[in-house]
Amino acid sequence: MSQSAPVSDREQKILGIIEKTRAKRPRFKDKRITMSHGAGGKATQTLIEGLLVPAFGSETLESLGDAGTVRIGDTELAMTTDSFVVKPIRFPGGSIGELAVNGTVNDLAVSGAKPLALTLSLVLEEGLPSEELRAEVDAIAAAASEADVQIIGGDTKVVERGHADKMYVCTSGIGEIDPRSSLSTGGLRPGDRIIVSGSVGEHGTAIMLARDEFELDADIVSDTHSLWPAADALMEAAGPELRCMRDATRGGVATVLNELARASTVAMSVNEADVPVLPAVAGAAEMLGIDPMYVANEGRLVAFVGPERADEALAALRAVPGSESAAEIGEVKTDPPGMVLVETAFGGRRVMDLLAGDPLPRIC
Amino acid sequence: MSQSAPVSDREQKILGIIEKTRAKRPRFKDKRITMSHGAGGKATQTLIEGLLVPAFGSETLESLGDAGTVRIGDTELAMTTDSFVVKPIRFPGGSIGELAVNGTVNDLAVSGAKPLALTLSLVLEEGLPSEELRAEVDAIAAAASEADVQIIGGDTKVVERGHADKMYVCTSGIGEIDPRSSLSTGGLRPGDRIIVSGSVGEHGTAIMLARDEFELDADIVSDTHSLWPAADALMEAAGPELRCMRDATRGGVATVLNELARASTVAMSVNEADVPVLPAVAGAAEMLGIDPMYVANEGRLVAFVGPERADEALAALRAVPGSESAAEIGEVKTDPPGMVLVETAFGGRRVMDLLAGDPLPRIC
Repeated sequence: MSQSAPVSDREQKILGIIEKTRAKRPRFKDKRITMSHGAGGKATQTLIEGLLVPAFGSETLESLGDAGTVRIGDTELAMTTDSFVVKPIRFPGGSIGELAVNGTVNDLAVSGAKPLALTLSLVLEEGLPSEELRAEVDAIAAAASEADVQIIGGDTKVVERGHADKMYVCTSGIGEIDPRSSLSTGGLRPGDRIIVSGSVGEHGTAIMLARDEFELDADIVSDTHSLWPAADALMEAAGPELRCMRDATRGGVATVLNELARASTVAMSVNEADVPVLPAVAGAAEMLGIDPMYVANEGRLVAFVGPERADEALAALRAVPGSESAAEIGEVKTDPPGMVLVETAFGGRRVMDLLAGDPLPRIC
Repeated sequence: MSQSAPVSDREQKILGIIEKTRAKRPRFKDKRITMSHGAGGKATQTLIEGLLVPAFGSETLESLGDAGTVRIGDTELAMTTDSFVVKPIRFPGGSIGELAVNGTVNDLAVSGAKPLALTLSLVLEEGLPSEELRAEVDAIAAAASEADVQIIGGDTKVVERGHADKMYVCTSGIGEIDPRSSLSTGGLRPGDRIIVSGSVGEHGTAIMLARDEFELDADIVSDTHSLWPAADALMEAAGPELRCMRDATRGGVATVLNELARASTVAMSVNEADVPVLPAVAGAAEMLGIDPMYVANEGRLVAFVGPERADEALAALRAVPGSESAAEIGEVKTDPPGMVLVETAFGGRRVMDLLAGDPLPRIC
């Protein structure tokens, strides 16, 4: 068992207030939907926990995992769904079709489920050039083949010009829960090590730059790829010591850490200097005024591993193509429960809270 | 075995040309996506068979059923997905949320699979009043409870004002294939009876009237409801004599008959006078210039049953709440393969082809 370093009285007071606010079930009281409800941060959490979860009252939704589970005969199945509305639909390193396959494959992978089959539902905008559709269909087929998963069903709808943005893609997937590990959002224990599978912030930054809204030219490509090989390697190396995995999409690594700190009623301590960030991403993020820890990834997971197997897990991860720059970035602590604290490179400490607002809309 | 009544030389020649054209695999050559690609008729078929199926090269997609299948251990699972873009989102008899649950439940039901679990993915338009979202969330919860199916996962995205139309809903579902029947789109045999589970054309007509584009006031409500009880009753009554079921959504009963005539290389003969149509629907359809057989239903299935069990199947269906007006409307024939012929109420005969264009956009 380990403890956070002591915090000052003033810090303790502030943390107490934040903690108290958090302990309440969020209530959804907003009058209208705003972009921030789709950003993966506080507003999204309020929408999900305040409106959707109470309405559907499902145990598996309550656990707020990346995928739901259902038992069929002797098999525990995971099932997940995601809509993709990324803008632009093509960007350095990928496209909406590739993202739609990898996003759903990754939700299954981090739930400890080998992806088996996907369905594909398209909402197309009237007037979409067929060549753009064909390119995405090819991207979907290639990504599915790469991830070794079949597309077994689909649907296509068309809406009038102006009522979509070229195309929206919804992929759903099922996978079989792997027996090697028992993952749980509530299973984190003080002393567990926090591992990221590679450098953070590339996908969201690549999308922002691709929009040409900023006078910034940097060679940054999306990290979109299947995380099943990484998840597989972690389960093999850490077994039951692997407590939980999450892919760090909307809201980035910071959001994953906050959600799991709350779900497991633990604290997290992150060493900022240990977080791998490409220099180009760090530079772009500084100019855009965004912390890379809040920027979406599409091929990065965060894993929580018991201290006994943390080194083996990290070594196994680094041997997986695409995860060579995996790193241990911090540790699970006891106090203050539900909080994420960052030890900065300059010896300071700050709270890394959930994202408010939506600095990076429609990045997936 | 039964044969169609003889057709004239001129009819035979026309049928020959149509048949030849149909035998070719459709090629997708359109330059841009139009509303008709979403209508469920010829353009949709060309998009699916000419672009999507060849790209994904999956056996289960090739069979063009309402759901794909995947074997897990000893269990045969069905999986399906649908996006809903209906306009307006609330209409007499239902709303987009209810439709999204029932549509996916029904795709599973007609595939002979008891619905087990659904996922829900929302694309919301910025500015959507929260009360409208709350009403749909409640409608989804109520329909899921009514259909005895759990919502086990979800996703929410938000797009800028103007880039969606209030909300689009994508539901995906899994179910366990029922061992009582072995359904197949290619399993129809001459002599099989064609049964519809109730009066046709109500959903699409209700939507059209709800749009207030026509100076027409009729008391027509959508037929949206779960078809699992109907499918269950049919499997119990007809067992292996139940060849295939389809829910008659976009493109209506006419499209189902055309698709299955092609898939089974058989002809269909429909007695127009036997097709149940509510007087209000018949009247509205006449004024709108639309054949109710092409109008979407959201709680009607078409079943094909061997002659030995057809009467039992019909009786069982009529005992199911919501299917009291089920009727036998025709018979599977040998010639001309791939064609649907209608014996009109006036003693004439006409070809009932696939829909071209989109007379009723965004009805689901």
